[in-house]
Amino acid sequence: MRFMTTPDNAADTPAEAADDTAPAATGVAAQDWDTASADPQYRAAVVDLLGALAYGELAAFERLAEDAKLAPTLSDKAELAKMASAEFHHFEQLRDRLAAIGAEPTQAMEPFVAALDGFHKQTAPSDWLEGLVKAYVGDSIASDFYREVAARLDSDTRGLVLAVLDDTGHAGFAIEKVRAAIDADPRVGGRLALWARRLMGEALSQSQRVVADRDALSTMLVGGVADGFDLAEVGRMFSRITEAHTKRMAALGLAA
Amino acid sequence: MRFMTTPDNAADTPAEAADDTAPAATGVAAQDWDTASADPQYRAAVVDLLGALAYGELAAFERLAEDAKLAPTLSDKAELAKMASAEFHHFEQLRDRLAAIGAEPTQAMEPFVAALDGFHKQTAPSDWLEGLVKAYVGDSIASDFYREVAARLDSDTRGLVLAVLDDTGHAGFAIEKVRAAIDADPRVGGRLALWARRLMGEALSQSQRVVADRDALSTMLVGGVADGFDLAEVGRMFSRITEAHTKRMAALGLAA
Repeated sequence: MRFMTTPDNAADTPAEAADDTAPAATGVAAQDWDTASADPQYRAAVVDLLGALAYGELAAFERLAEDAKLAPTLSDKAELAKMASAEFHHFEQLRDRLAAIGAEPTQAMEPFVAALDGFHKQTAPSDWLEGLVKAYVGDSIASDFYREVAARLDSDTRGLVLAVLDDTGHAGFAIEKVRAAIDADPRVGGRLALWARRLMGEALSQSQRVVADRDALSTMLVGGVADGFDLAEVGRMFSRITEAHTKRMAALGLAA
Repeated sequence: MRFMTTPDNAADTPAEAADDTAPAATGVAAQDWDTASADPQYRAAVVDLLGALAYGELAAFERLAEDAKLAPTLSDKAELAKMASAEFHHFEQLRDRLAAIGAEPTQAMEPFVAALDGFHKQTAPSDWLEGLVKAYVGDSIASDFYREVAARLDSDTRGLVLAVLDDTGHAGFAIEKVRAAIDADPRVGGRLALWARRLMGEALSQSQRVVADRDALSTMLVGGVADGFDLAEVGRMFSRITEAHTKRMAALGLAA
C-alpha cells in the first residue's frame, strides 16, 4: 500500500507535531518495541494491527492479480502484476515481523479474514476502470488510517508500518488511466463517482465490524492504552480520512 | 518456472554432452548474443522464444494467484502467492532482456497469448489439488522443453533462460501436499492421474498450434537455423519430455 500524505496528517513527523489537534509524541511513540511491549495490552494491539495489515496486503495481492485479468493491454496487465508482487513483499515483511515478536502469523491474520474478504466480495469491480478506482481509493483510505495509527506506535513498529505503506505505484498509474477514460467519455465519471462512494461506504462498514470485534485494537484506538486516541480524536481522524478521500476524488475528476 | 533435471537432459552441460543422441555444443551454442544475432533468422527465433517464455511467466503468475484463492489455509495461500511473485520477477527479467535487444516486449509476447490463454482456459483446476498438480506438471513440462532448447542457444540467451527456469519452490510444495492427500484418500490418486493426462494432452495440442504458427521458432527447432534440431531429434525430444513426465507422475503416486 501507499500514499499521499494528507494535509492534516502529521504521522511522518510525530515528534514535531505542533498543531493543537495532534497529540504530542510522548509515551509509547517515544519508546522502542522492547520497552513498549512490556505492556501485554499494547502488545496484543500491535499483533492485531500487524495481523490486519498482513492480511490486507495478501488480500490486496489477490485482488490486484485478479484485476490484472481485466487489463485491456499486456503492458497494463504487467503493471498490475508488478503492484501485486509489491504487495506480496510487504506481506512477507509483516509476516516475518509477527514471527520475530513471537506471534503466530496465521493466527494473527485470522480475525481479519472475514472483514477483508467481505469487503472485496462486496466490491468486486465489474471492469478495468472500477478495478483501478478501487485500488486507488481502497489503498488511499487504508494508508491514511495506518499513518494516523502509526503516530501512536512504538518506534520499531512505526518504522515497519510506514515502510509497507510506501508507494507501490498505484496512484500515478490509476490517476492517469482514469483521467484519460473520463476525457474520452465524460459519462464514465458519473458511474465511477458512484462506485467510489460505494467503496467508501463498504470500507467504513467493515471497519466498524473489526473495531467492534477486536478489543485490544479498539482500546488502543479509543484510548486506554498508552497514547491511544480519545473518542473525539477518533471522530476527527475519520473526518480527516473522509476529507482526504473527497480531495482525491476531485483530483481524479470525480465528485465524491 | 523451475525444475528437476531429467536423466536424459544434458542441457545444463551442453559443452560436455557426450552421449551420441545429444548434439555437440558447437556453432551458436559456442557464440555470444552479439555474434549469433547477426543472423536475422536466429534473432527472430530468440525474440519468439523470449516472448513465449515471458508471456508464459505472466500467465503463470495469474494462474498461481488465481489458485491461491483455492488454498485451504492462509499459509498455503501465502505459499502460492510467493510462487506467483517469483514468476513475476522472472517475467521482468525476460521483458527487460527483450527490451535490451531492441525488441518490443508486448509485440514479442502477443503471438503466444492465444495458445497460453487457451491452455489455461481448457485446464482451469476445479479444486486446490488439481491446481497443485497443474502447477507441478505444467511447469515441469515447460521447463524440460526450455532446457532442451537452451542447449541450442547462444551463451547469453542460454544463461537467462536457465536462470528463469530456476526452482521457485513448486515441486517440493506440490509433491508433499498431493502425496498427503492421496495417503488420506487413495481414490484421489485416480482422479488426479486422469487430470494430469488431460494436462499433458492439452499442452501438446497448444504446442503444436504455436509451432505451426511461428516460422522462425519452428525453423530453429527442426533445423535450418544454426544448431537446430532435425526432425528425428524433435521426436526424441518429445519422447524424453513424455518419459520425464511419466516418471514424475509415478514419483507423485499417480499412474501417468
